[in-house]
Parts: sequence; C-alpha cells; structure tokens
Amino acid sequence: MSGNRVVDDGVDISSAASSRRHGDNLPYVHKVGAPPKQSLVKEFKSTVKETFFHDEPLRPFKNQPKSKKLLLGIQSIFPILDWGRRYKLSFLRGDIIAGLTIASLCIPQDIAYAKLANLDPQYGLYSSFVPPLVYAFMGSSRDIAIGPVAVVSLLLGTLLRNEIDPKNKHEYQRLAFTATFFAGVTQFVLGFFRLGFLIDFLSHAAIVGFMAGAAITIGLQQLKGLLGVKTFTKKTDIVSVMKSVWSNVHHGWNWETCVIGISFLAFLLLCKYIAKKKKKLFWVAAIAPLLSVIISTFFVYITRADKKGVQIVREIKQGLNPSSVHEFYFSGTYLGKGFKIGVVAGMIGLTEAVAIGRTFAAMKDYHLDGNKEMVALGSMNIIGSMTSCYVATGSFSRSAVNFMAGCNTAVSNIVMSLVVMLTLLVITPLFKYTPNAILAAIIISAVVNLFDIHAMKVIWKIDKFDFAACMGAFFGVVFVSVEIGLLIAVALSFAKILLQVTRPRTAVLGKIPRTSVYRNVQQYPEATKIPGLLIVRVDSAIYFSNANYVRERILRLLTDEEDELLKNSSHQKIEFLIIEMSPVTDIDTSGINSLEDLYKHLQKKDIKIALANPGQVVLDKLYTSGFPSLIGEDKIFLTVVDAVTTLAPKLEP
Amino acid sequence: MSGNRVVDDGVDISSAASSRRHGDNLPYVHKVGAPPKQSLVKEFKSTVKETFFHDEPLRPFKNQPKSKKLLLGIQSIFPILDWGRRYKLSFLRGDIIAGLTIASLCIPQDIAYAKLANLDPQYGLYSSFVPPLVYAFMGSSRDIAIGPVAVVSLLLGTLLRNEIDPKNKHEYQRLAFTATFFAGVTQFVLGFFRLGFLIDFLSHAAIVGFMAGAAITIGLQQLKGLLGVKTFTKKTDIVSVMKSVWSNVHHGWNWETCVIGISFLAFLLLCKYIAKKKKKLFWVAAIAPLLSVIISTFFVYITRADKKGVQIVREIKQGLNPSSVHEFYFSGTYLGKGFKIGVVAGMIGLTEAVAIGRTFAAMKDYHLDGNKEMVALGSMNIIGSMTSCYVATGSFSRSAVNFMAGCNTAVSNIVMSLVVMLTLLVITPLFKYTPNAILAAIIISAVVNLFDIHAMKVIWKIDKFDFAACMGAFFGVVFVSVEIGLLIAVALSFAKILLQVTRPRTAVLGKIPRTSVYRNVQQYPEATKIPGLLIVRVDSAIYFSNANYVRERILRLLTDEEDELLKNSSHQKIEFLIIEMSPVTDIDTSGINSLEDLYKHLQKKDIKIALANPGQVVLDKLYTSGFPSLIGEDKIFLTVVDAVTTLAPKLEP
Repeated sequence: MSGNRVVDDGVDISSAASSRRHGDNLPYVHKVGAPPKQSLVKEFKSTVKETFFHDEPLRPFKNQPKSKKLLLGIQSIFPILDWGRRYKLSFLRGDIIAGLTIASLCIPQDIAYAKLANLDPQYGLYSSFVPPLVYAFMGSSRDIAIGPVAVVSLLLGTLLRNEIDPKNKHEYQRLAFTATFFAGVTQFVLGFFRLGFLIDFLSHAAIVGFMAGAAITIGLQQLKGLLGVKTFTKKTDIVSVMKSVWSNVHHGWNWETCVIGISFLAFLLLCKYIAKKKKKLFWVAAIAPLLSVIISTFFVYITRADKKGVQIVREIKQGLNPSSVHEFYFSGTYLGKGFKIGVVAGMIGLTEAVAIGRTFAAMKDYHLDGNKEMVALGSMNIIGSMTSCYVATGSFSRSAVNFMAGCNTAVSNIVMSLVVMLTLLVITPLFKYTPNAILAAIIISAVVNLFDIHAMKVIWKIDKFDFAACMGAFFGVVFVSVEIGLLIAVALSFAKILLQVTRPRTAVLGKIPRTSVYRNVQQYPEATKIPGLLIVRVDSAIYFSNANYVRERILRLLTDEEDELLKNSSHQKIEFLIIEMSPVTDIDTSGINSLEDLYKHLQKKDIKIALANPGQVVLDKLYTSGFPSLIGEDKIFLTVVDAVTTLAPKLEP
Repeated sequence: MSGNRVVDDGVDISSAASSRRHGDNLPYVHKVGAPPKQSLVKEFKSTVKETFFHDEPLRPFKNQPKSKKLLLGIQSIFPILDWGRRYKLSFLRGDIIAGLTIASLCIPQDIAYAKLANLDPQYGLYSSFVPPLVYAFMGSSRDIAIGPVAVVSLLLGTLLRNEIDPKNKHEYQRLAFTATFFAGVTQFVLGFFRLGFLIDFLSHAAIVGFMAGAAITIGLQQLKGLLGVKTFTKKTDIVSVMKSVWSNVHHGWNWETCVIGISFLAFLLLCKYIAKKKKKLFWVAAIAPLLSVIISTFFVYITRADKKGVQIVREIKQGLNPSSVHEFYFSGTYLGKGFKIGVVAGMIGLTEAVAIGRTFAAMKDYHLDGNKEMVALGSMNIIGSMTSCYVATGSFSRSAVNFMAGCNTAVSNIVMSLVVMLTLLVITPLFKYTPNAILAAIIISAVVNLFDIHAMKVIWKIDKFDFAACMGAFFGVVFVSVEIGLLIAVALSFAKILLQVTRPRTAVLGKIPRTSVYRNVQQYPEATKIPGLLIVRVDSAIYFSNANYVRERILRLLTDEEDELLKNSSHQKIEFLIIEMSPVTDIDTSGINSLEDLYKHLQKKDIKIALANPGQVVLDKLYTSGFPSLIGEDKIFLTVVDAVTTLAPKLEP
C-alpha cells in the first residue's frame, strides 16, 4: 500500500518531510524521460528544416493534386496571379491615390538620390520605373514603395568612388550596373537558398546607429548644394566636411543659393511637422517636395538666378531606360570589385526592404515570407541592372506615405511607375532650371527621419550593450566613413552573439517560502538555500565556447558558498551539487568533458553531483558518453524538487 | 481563514481543482520577483568581470597588506618564487629522471621538427633550450614539456614558404624569427588583457580534425626522407604528394634509405606499442628515438652508406643560441606577413599548450589560470625569438612522458633544457652521420598519436554536426592545405555557435500525469496538454538574431495545434498562449519587438499571452519597454503551474 502511494513531486515540504520520516514511505519520483534516439537521417532532416524551412513555405502544397501544385508554384513566384484574381474595383481608388502621392514624392527624391550615388539624375528616375513594375508582379508586400533610397545611394556612391572617379562617367556607370547586377544576384541567391536569416545577424541596434550616422553624413554632403560651396571635400567624415565648409565661408558660398536652399528647407520641414502633428494631413509632406521643385524651378527660370551662380540641374536625358546589358564588367579587376560592392549594397538594401515589409505586414496582419521577398527584390534588381537602373529597394518614408494614402495592393507601385514613365517621356526638360539647392533641401528633409532618436532612447533604456553597438556604428559612420561604420555595426552585432554564447549566466537557486519552487536567490531574495546542497542553474547550452567557463563558474560558486559557511562558522558541509539543466538545451563533447572534469574535481572534495531535468537531446548525449553511470544513474532527476527530496534525507546526521 | 490558506503552486491537481470549485478559494500565487534595477555602473562592472575576470585572479590579493600584495604580484608573474620555496629535495629525483627522459625524446624530435619548419636542425635544439627555461620561471603547469611541436612546425613551415623560398636561408630565418616574435606578442597580449577565452572559439571537434589532418600531412611529407625520394613536390595535399612519390618509384627511391627508414620506423612503432600495452614500460618509447639515432648514425658511419645515396644530416652548428634581436623585420612588407603568420602560429600554439596544461592540472587537481599561462608562453616565445628560437609550445607526447616519468615541478623542464645545452655545446658534431630517414621515422612515429580515432568516434556518437566540423577540418588539411583546413575548422566552429543562436529550440509543454510538472511533450509522450491552452517553452535568449524565428516558430506551433483540434473536430479553441520563459536568459529590443508583434497577431485571433517565470534581466527589460502593461501585468506568473491554475478556470464554459 505504502509503495503505491503517489506523492506529487511538487508536494509541499511538510508532507514530504513526514513521508521522509517514515523512511520506507519514499516520495514518488517520476522517471526522467529518454525516448529512443532519433535516427541520423531524421535528426539531419529536422536540423535542415529548422534552419532553412522553419516557416514551412511548402505547407499549402501539401496533399494537393499535381496540377494544383504547379499552379501554386507559379503563383508563389508571381503572387500577382493570386491577389490579382481577387482584385476588386473598390481597391482601385486607394491604389491610384497612393500611387500618385508616392510618385509626386519619388520624382524629386529620385533626381536627388541619383546625385548621392554620383550618377546623372535620369538614373534615379529609371530606377523608379522598372524595379517597382517587376516588384508588383513578384513581391508579396502590399505597402512597400520601391525605388532608390538615400542610404543605399550614399553607400553605393562611396564604394564606387573608391574604385573609379565619377568623372570617368562611362566606366563609373558600368561599375554601377555591375554592382547592381550582383546586388540582385546576392538577394536572389539568399532568398532562393533560404539563407535569408543571414540578414538577421545585423542587429536592430546597429542598424539604428548606422542609419542615424548615414543621415548625418548625407545631410552634411548636402551642405555643398544648399550653400552653393564650390570646392568641396570628397571625404564624408564630419571633420573634413566641416573644415571644407568653413574654409569656403568667405568667398565659396553663394548667397542666392543659400536663400533658396534654406527657405525651401524650412518650408519642407514645416510641412513635415504639420503632417506629423495631424496624421490626416500626411499628403502635405508628400507633395511638398514636388511643389518646391516646381516653384523654385519657375523662380530660377524667371530670375535667371543660374547666371548669378545658382547651380541648376541643367539636363536630364529624356526618354525611357536604355538597355545596359552590354555594360557589365564580366572580366578584369572590376568584376571582383563590382561583386564586392554589389554584395554589400544588396545586403543593406535587403535589410531595409525586409524590415519595411515586415512592419507593414504586421500592421495589416498578413504573412510575408522573407525569403520569397528576397527572390522578388533580387529579380527586380537583376532586371533593373539590365535597364540602366541602380540598386532599388523599399523606401521607408515613401512606404509610410503609401500606407497612409490608403494603398491596397502593389497596384500603387504600378501607378507610380507609370507616372515616372510619363515623366521620363515628357517632362524631364522642364527640370532644366531646378536648382541643386532644392534637391539638397529635399534630401535633408527626407533623411531627418532616419535619425531615430526615439529608438535610440528605447535601446538605451533596455540594453546598454546594444546602445554601445548603436553608438559605435553611428560614430563610425559620422567620424570615419560609411564602410567603417558598417563594419563596426557588423562586428559589434557578432560580438554580442559571441559574448552571449561564451559567458552564459548561472544562478544559485533557493526555495521560495510556502512553495516548492526553486528560483534564483538574487531575483528572489526571500528564497532560502537548502543546507548541505548547492543548486546551480546554467542558463545556456554547454558548448566548446563556454564549457571551460561553466566549469570554472560552478567551482567558483561552490567556493563562495564554502567561504560563506566558514564565515558563519557553520559545521554543515556541502555534500551535493545539483545542476538544474532545464535551460541547457544542448551539450557537445567539450561540454561533457567539462562535466567530467567537474566530477573529478568534486570527487576529491567528497561532493556528489546530481542533475535536474536534463532535456531530451542533452540526456541522449550524456547517456552516449556514459556520464550518468559515472555519477550514478539515480542522480538524475525530473525536477529540482525531486532531487532535493531524494537527496536531502541523506544529509541528516 | 480561506484567504490565508496557502496552496502550494506545485500542489496536485485534485486539490487545486477543489479549491477552484470553491471560487473564492483561489490558489496562492507567489509574485514574480522584480528587485530594484542595478545601476548602470554595477551592470557594466559585472559584465566586464564575467567576461574577463570570471576566474577571479585577484581573489588572493583581497584584504592583504600592501607589502604582501607586492609579493603576491611578483609571485604571480614568477610562480617559481612561490613553489620554489616549498620545493623539497624528495621532488628532485622524479624531476631529474623525468627531465632526462624528455631530453632523450626531445633531442631527435627537435632536429626533425626543425626540418618540418624548413629550418636548419640546430634551430630545433635552440628552441628546446631557452623557452623551457623561461617557462620554468613563469609558467604554472607542473607537467607540461616545452619545445617545438610537429603541428606548429608544419604550420610555420607552410606559411613561411608561401612568402619566402627556404633556399634564401637568411631572409627565411629572419621572417621565422619575426613570426615567432609576433606569436609571442599575440600570446602575451591575449593573456595580459585576459582575452584568453578567444581560443575557446576553436571547437574541440575542429581541433581533433585539424590535428588528424596535420598528422597525415606531416606523415606524407616524411615519405621523402623515409624513401629517399629525390625530387619531391612542395605542395602538401595528399594527391600531389602521392603523385610525386609514385612518379619517382622507378629511379627516385633509394633502397638503402628505404631499408634503414622502414626498419627503424617498425622498431619505433613496436616500442610505442609496448609502452601503450604496459604503462610501466613507457620509458621504452621515450628512449627509442635516441637509441635509433645512435644506432643508425653509428651504422652509417661504419658502412659509409652516405656515399650510396643515403641522405644524412651533414652538419649541426655547434654552440649555444646566437642572438637574433637584430634579425627582425620591423618594416617593409615582411613586417605585416610576419605578423599574420605569428598570430596564426601563436594561436595554434596556445590552443595546444592550454589544452595540455588543463588536462594535467585536472589529473593532479591543481588550478591553472589560462590567461597567466598565456602570458608565460608569450614571454617565453618573445625571449625565444631574440635568441634564434622558433615558436615553442607544449608538446602533448613529451608532456605525457614527463608526467609518467614522475615529474613533480617545472624543474624537469630545467633539467631537459640543461641537457639540450650540453648537447649543443658538446655533441652536435656526432649527429653528422645521422640519416634523414631516421628523422622521418621519428616524426612519423610521433605524429601517429595526433590521429585520435577514439576521439573521432566519441564525437560521431555524441554530435553529428561536430563530426562534420571535424571531418571538414580533416579533409581540408589533407586534400587542400594546412591553412585551408584551419580556415574550415574556424569557420565551422563559428557556424555552430551562430546556428545555435539563430535557431533555438522550442518545445510544447504538457503536464506529466500524477505530478504538476510541465515538460516537453516530445520527450515525455505521456505528458498531456491542457485544453484551451498552448504552453510553449523558448530555449534561448531572444536576440535580434533569432527574434523573427522565435515569433514565427511560436505561430507555427499554434497553427499546428489549431489544425490538430480541427482534425479532431473539437470545439475547443485555444484561448491562452503561455510562454515558459525560464530558459530565456536575456532579451533585447528586437526580441521585445518580436513579442509585441506576436501579441498584435494573436490579438486578432482573440488569443491572450501569458508569461511564466521570466528571469530578472528579462523582466527588467520587459517592464522598461512597457510590454507587461500591454498584455496585462496579471499575465506574468512565477511558474507554468501558477499560470495554468489561474487561467484554466476562465476557460470553463
């Protein structure tokens, strides 16, 4: 009868104590589960699945007839075939309004951003024509607005200029197309081989810092256009730029340019402010740039201010994108350089586009397959690179406007693309007298948003290391260069991951009064330790990278505990070390070696080891290595409570 | 009365159910602890401490007077001052025997290893004279035997030859000393700045594979000496070497050399086998190399076999180490190359020495401070580089012999060093007629141990990914080159860490019958899910690198669960998602964003989120971000049991 008595392992201590006193009436201890090992193939399959197909992209294909599978396959490459069939006329109004709005915003931005990339203005417009069209057919995001963006333009411009002087226009353009091609290939390959998770390695904090730094750098570059400075440094760091600006203060600035630039900048920022305060007036900020361009162009044309030193756009080539298929460098040193630049620009473009896609998908509650998006973005840039476009991606500011203007589907991108096409065909000559100062003002007012002080504050509050990474990337960009900033961002992101893996947390556990729950004594100061026992929790998989640390850390906790006992001149000795293994999700050979070393070490001190709640994988590996028979198989328990109730009686003198 | 009733959170369900039926009689739920936030400085300090000073190197300095601190400081740089004072005459016997034994082993090995590094034989002896002396004063390991080792010699030889043809003796030597100097500096700096944990990033499995590959490569290289092949490839991969050997089979081999080489190799391997079978006869293997050298040298001298094409050592320069201080390249392109080679060789040397030190320290149960060891090894190589030595480190085979011969302290290294000194001063001319074939045989019999088939088997059994890393490194070395193998080893080590961080495990929990313990339903198939609840455990810190994955994984688990309910045509809906946070040791801004996204997503499905047992750090960050007020602060519980008992009653229709 007494042998059958079931006592909960989470029983309260008083009843456990009473059963202990009875001696034969031992508490019920559930066996630790160790189901049959998975076969090698199965294990491998599950690893591959979790790594590459964790979102089950093939789920809809399951249990479908072949013809349906083919249809689904085509639809998954061209989602427009799916949502297009369900397109309602009622969507059209929103899509057209949104498309026109983002078109009015993108045309001046395109011209300005092309200058950031050291390309002629029409290339910006080209990149707002073909890529959005391609994306509309292949992409799944309903809200993203595709085209050139400030940061990628700056990055591309900086990296390309390191290789070729932009004055060698033709070579420079060829390298730009080559880089764009490889950016597309990179994006396509990452998506196709489902390696999209690689962009997750750039931490949010590092991106915030990098973007803020890029905003400052881009803003500083615009001082040239805004103030009409004639001789301007080619470096992008703040020190060089400010020196360049100040050394020109007496005879290098053009006051007419200053007046135009600064007054329109004030106007643009005011519009932005209004739109921010009243969400309904978002269109004010959206059309302000185009309005500024029209007004200032007209003004310059009337006053012929260009004769007084106000720099103007002069010429935008009329007509649609020419082919650039034969422009690629497919051999020579520029092949490698174009490839490198393309990979970097492609990754940064992806990071931005995927973040935008995810944000808006979460807002409207639809699912976005990151890898499929990458394939779409890659295809769009590959096709773009063949039609004289440079790297396009999702623009955060234009996507937000698109969203607020009530877009329903990617049709708004098609509308925008058509407007840009008309612009290229018909009205580019009208931009002749557009002053460069306006473009500078438009860029500055656009990049202000990239400096996300709110996000920085949140990062500071939540995680100081993240903030350091953020600032590292920021100062790297501002004081050195875009590449260095990016490098710092990547390096600090990795450092954080590695630090986490090398120095996992450990905690000493105690029993929370009136419960049988064991918790970190630092988090719960009321938790009490059990005399004669040290309960330690290791908060990470034990791998080669932390195996030595974990061993030494546990030994140190033990020494601390012994010191404390000595100080209290207690005669109680520690007889058992219980390792709570719940968070130990995995272990490898180094980890097992480390546990064995720990065992040897403790054996000399006459302390026994017990394990609580090892997970399935860990248990399998421990059994394979023979560790349980080393410490005694009866020393492995389902819970800390089990371990304590079983081991504690033995401590009684 | 009923309000005061304390019900254990780990109470068995029957009583919880009864209390639930009473309605007012709610179970006692302990509040989740959230102690006051740590100050920034404190937090920073603890991070620095855990990262760099986790082993508390300054613990003995605590609460000591200043003079004592100074003494301890000097002692910690020169541990000989500490153990030297406690040295007993009874130690001397063991130390002298061990010293003589390893000297007899190291002299022929030194000459042979120098050839691996493409250096003249005396440089091997130099490196067994100065570095062990320095180490004896500064190192803390009692068992390690210092000197040149096969793998580092091969690595150095390969890397140096990539830069300078060894035929340009003087330049080659200068680069070797420069590399040695920087190897020492690397080791010193890593130790001094307590960055020793960096070597932990090379996984055990990758090292096993790399070493085995190096053993094969080194063995193959010896075919030249062993068979007397005249024209030998300079590549190290197996294909090139075997081609080279076979193409020479008809007229390139020297039969006299073959006979000498193969018969002595057989003798050496036999001695090794005997020593392995009978531990007491370890000295047989230890003196066999020297014996072989003496016998074969005498034999060649008598028969003048060198006139029949048997290659001999010819000359070893007599005399002690000359100074090489003025030989370093401190400018020009070779500075950078020497630096790079030095860093690589230094790191590999460290990995080997620290592993040896730790192994024997664990056996004899004394503590070894890895970082202090690195300072000692670094100093020894810096001083070595100034006295014509090349990179020395701990030799596994000689350390094992040292241990078995009964060494007590580093005095055995001093004895060995003195024997090598006498050798250099007096008997080097006697090595003139030593045939190269003997040296080849000695190297082969020495590197056999590096091929650790037992370790490979264990790795295969325990962790398949580790085994892939091991094989990757192995085949990289064997089929391509030492550098590529090393690169693969490092890359796969990192890939494993990153994979762990990007794709953490998740588990659905169920209640184990007759207990109130919630465990993985896959590990414990008898565990039952609670209707209307989905309990998910996330097994890792939630960081930017896995935040998206974790969100999508949880959503997938939810969809699976809903599908299953549909299949069983159950009318029960999932109303609560309980996330067991015990293993979530940390969270960052991306992680919190991800949880917020999850919340938004689930809100639309009318599913509520509850958290169980968030740790201190996580809770702090969640509160800072305002997440608890989003989901409701009453949705955070101390345990899963608490969450279930509180939420489950609400599920009743």
